[in-house]
This record gives sequence, C-alpha cells and structure tokens, in this order.
Amino acid sequence: MTEKSAKMIEVCFSPALFAYKLTRQEFIVVIIDVLRATTSFCAALDNGAECIIPLASVDEARSYKEKGFLVAGERDGSKIDFADFGNSPTGFITPLVRGRAIAYTTTNGTQAIELAKSSKSIVLASFSNLGAIAGWLNEQHKNVVILCSGWKNTFSMEDAVCAGALTLELMKSGDYRMNCDSSYAAYDLWNAAKIDLLGYMQKASHYQRLEKLGIGDQLPFCFELNTSQCIPIWNGEAIIGFASPKSE
Amino acid sequence: MTEKSAKMIEVCFSPALFAYKLTRQEFIVVIIDVLRATTSFCAALDNGAECIIPLASVDEARSYKEKGFLVAGERDGSKIDFADFGNSPTGFITPLVRGRAIAYTTTNGTQAIELAKSSKSIVLASFSNLGAIAGWLNEQHKNVVILCSGWKNTFSMEDAVCAGALTLELMKSGDYRMNCDSSYAAYDLWNAAKIDLLGYMQKASHYQRLEKLGIGDQLPFCFELNTSQCIPIWNGEAIIGFASPKSE
Repeated sequence: MTEKSAKMIEVCFSPALFAYKLTRQEFIVVIIDVLRATTSFCAALDNGAECIIPLASVDEARSYKEKGFLVAGERDGSKIDFADFGNSPTGFITPLVRGRAIAYTTTNGTQAIELAKSSKSIVLASFSNLGAIAGWLNEQHKNVVILCSGWKNTFSMEDAVCAGALTLELMKSGDYRMNCDSSYAAYDLWNAAKIDLLGYMQKASHYQRLEKLGIGDQLPFCFELNTSQCIPIWNGEAIIGFASPKSE
Repeated sequence: MTEKSAKMIEVCFSPALFAYKLTRQEFIVVIIDVLRATTSFCAALDNGAECIIPLASVDEARSYKEKGFLVAGERDGSKIDFADFGNSPTGFITPLVRGRAIAYTTTNGTQAIELAKSSKSIVLASFSNLGAIAGWLNEQHKNVVILCSGWKNTFSMEDAVCAGALTLELMKSGDYRMNCDSSYAAYDLWNAAKIDLLGYMQKASHYQRLEKLGIGDQLPFCFELNTSQCIPIWNGEAIIGFASPKSE
C-alpha cells in the first residue's frame, strides 16, 4: 500500500478530545480502558458470556438488575453495592457468566462507548487482546481512531501506552500511517514502557488507586499481553465477542 | 519540602482538557505554544515591545489595527493579510516593536490565554525561556498547571515535549511532585526527544505544516533552549515581560 492510500491511525487521549479528531473519513473506533473495562469484557466473553450491555448510569444498571440480568459495575474503582460483579477481570473467570447477558456500567469505559455509538463500527481493545484486535483491524479497509477512555476525561497512562502498543502492531503491516501527534506520542510512550510494562505502570494514577482500594491483585492480569483472542464488537445493541480466525 | 507539602505539577495536553484538571487548589497557569505564539512573545518582549494584547478573533485584531496599534497574527499558520507581523519569532527582532503595544491573535495560543483568564496568575513559556520560567516558578509557592495550546484542541507534540522539559526543570528543585499521568507522559516524551530535539520534532504535524508554508526557517529558533530570560506574564489586561533576576 502506498503512503497516499495507507489507512490512517489517530489516537484520542480522552473522550473529551473525540470531537476534535482530525479525520472526517470513515473509521473504526477502538475503545481502550485497560483498567479495567475492556480487559474485563474480554474475560467475560472468553468465559462464555453471551454479551455485555454497556450502560452509562448506575440507575440504568439497577433497572436491569430488577429485570433479572446479571449486573457488573464500579464507580471510582469500587464495586457498585447491588452489582453481581465489580470491574475486576478475574471475577469473570467463572461458569456463572456462561450464556448470560451482563449489564455493565463503569466510570469511564462505558461512557466512552456511549460517546462512540454514532460511529458505524466499534471494537474494544486491551493488552489482553491486542494481537487479536490488530489482526482483525488489518483485515478491514478502514481508518482507525483509538479512543482512550482515560479517567473522568483526563489522560490515563495505561490507555495511552496500550494505544501505542496497538499502533505499533498495526504499523508492522505496512498498511497504515500515523495521522496525528497523539499517535506518535502513544507509540513513543509504549517504547518507553514495554521493557518493564508492569513496573512502568506503577506511576499511573489509576494503578495506584486500585492498589489503595485493595484490588492491586488485578493489575498483573491487566498488563499481560495476548492472553485472549476475543474481539469484542458493538453490534448496535450490545457487545458480543468472536474469536479471531487464529484461535479457531 | 516533604512529599505531602510539595507543590503539584499538572499538564493539560489540550485547552479542551483544562476544565478537567485534577487540582481544585490555587495554581499558576503556564501556557505553552512553542510553534509559535509563546516563542514569539518572548522575542517581541526581548526586543522592547511594551506589551502583547492577546485577542481571540481576527475581527478584534482588525479593530485594533484601525486604532493604530501594531498587529500580529496568523490563522492556520499563515500571516493575516492586514497584520504588520505574522507569528514568526524572528520577525520581532526589529527596532519597530520598541515601546509599542502589539495586538496579537493566533489559531491556538491566544485562545488558550482566553480560556485561562479566570485564573489569578498566567505566565507563558516556550523552549526559549524555559530556564527563566522554571526559576521564576521556583520562587512562587503555588501549584502549577501547564496548559499546552495544541492545535485546534488536539494534542501537539511540541507543546507536550516542552511541558515535559519544564516539568523536569521544576522537579530538579525537589519542591514539586507530578500530580497526573499527563505530567509523567510529558516528562517521558521530553526524555525521548531531548537528545535530538529538532530531529525528533520533524514528525510533529505543525512542524510539517510550517515547512509546507515555506516558513520552516523559523523552526530551529523555536527549538533552541534558553535564548531568553523573559518572563511573559498576564497582568489582567496584557502580557508584559520582565527579565528574571539572573539576567540582571
């Protein structure tokens, strides 16, 4: 593919910057919320959940609970009191989720999905399914906007670094070009972090927040690469998962 | 100074993120627009300009022109047709600016000033006055929010890297702590860039834009460190400069 016809990669470091993305051409949105929504979605779908229904508000989650759905969610990092699950990925490694739809609300990740819903195509990425997502994107003929969920509209290191790791994976194909300064910055941050990813992340504010909440045991799982072949995709009503061809 | 009482450094990568800064305590805003507003302000003030009157719109600039002011400004990188100066720092190395107030409007930098005007204290930084600004900040007992002007609310590499360079300078004093993931990211980007700053910046979109506009000759000047001791400060009506004690 020539430089001119290469697919574009853009990175938005916060949902508040999504409106200012540079491309006006068609694109796939890749939402990243490493700690922990998009990591957890992969875990839930890998363990047989039928789908994830992302919800922006706790009130909506409560109404789904009353209708008999499994409910997962957190606010400010802590599990919502009436929920069946918090937002810890290893919590979904249980047969309880098999065949079930999970109504899911989080501080940042589900808000980012809400924002991106107007886009034709949304997939969800984390370190755990990085290679699978890159492989799937490589088969599409679309530009890519990587949307970092961040923390309450601020920049989050873990999402930016994951965006950089995905950018590097895509660039390897030779079919893409980086279309904004954020994509170069994410790429360089991944290069700074990759030698000791878990060690690098110890300065990230949400890493520290989760440690203080006593759920630091979830952190190594969230920074492990390619443990999942799941491609969580928004189908207009819910997030469903399908395994990439490589895992079949 | 103990960790607890240390002054905080935050970085906002875009004016669109300024509303989401984490601190609610009093702070000094440091506005950065390396290419080229804040670099140019230093050049104009160093060459004897009395003050800079930042204006958000071209229409306002026109009305100042009619009142007999010197006018400087650009839109999308190009000089405004009726302006006396564009936004090139070396353009201000002339006796024509001595003792004059300059009405000034730019695509990003003057918009960032407009946004920050509600803050009690605003100073303006670039690579050219980095050390002087760090020295001045060290004498204040305030938290610091570094506001990158960016490009039309998107992330700009040159402003982020300059924010990282300033963060490093401040951290050397031992009186500060980084209070957000953006400050760590900026710091790491500066570390990636500093060995060959001008070479690193060649991938930045605004670097390329200025080259395409035929004003790439301004770029080396904008990435030269500590050529100025000027501290451009917003006094509530205009930006005035004063030399740091070191230069006296």
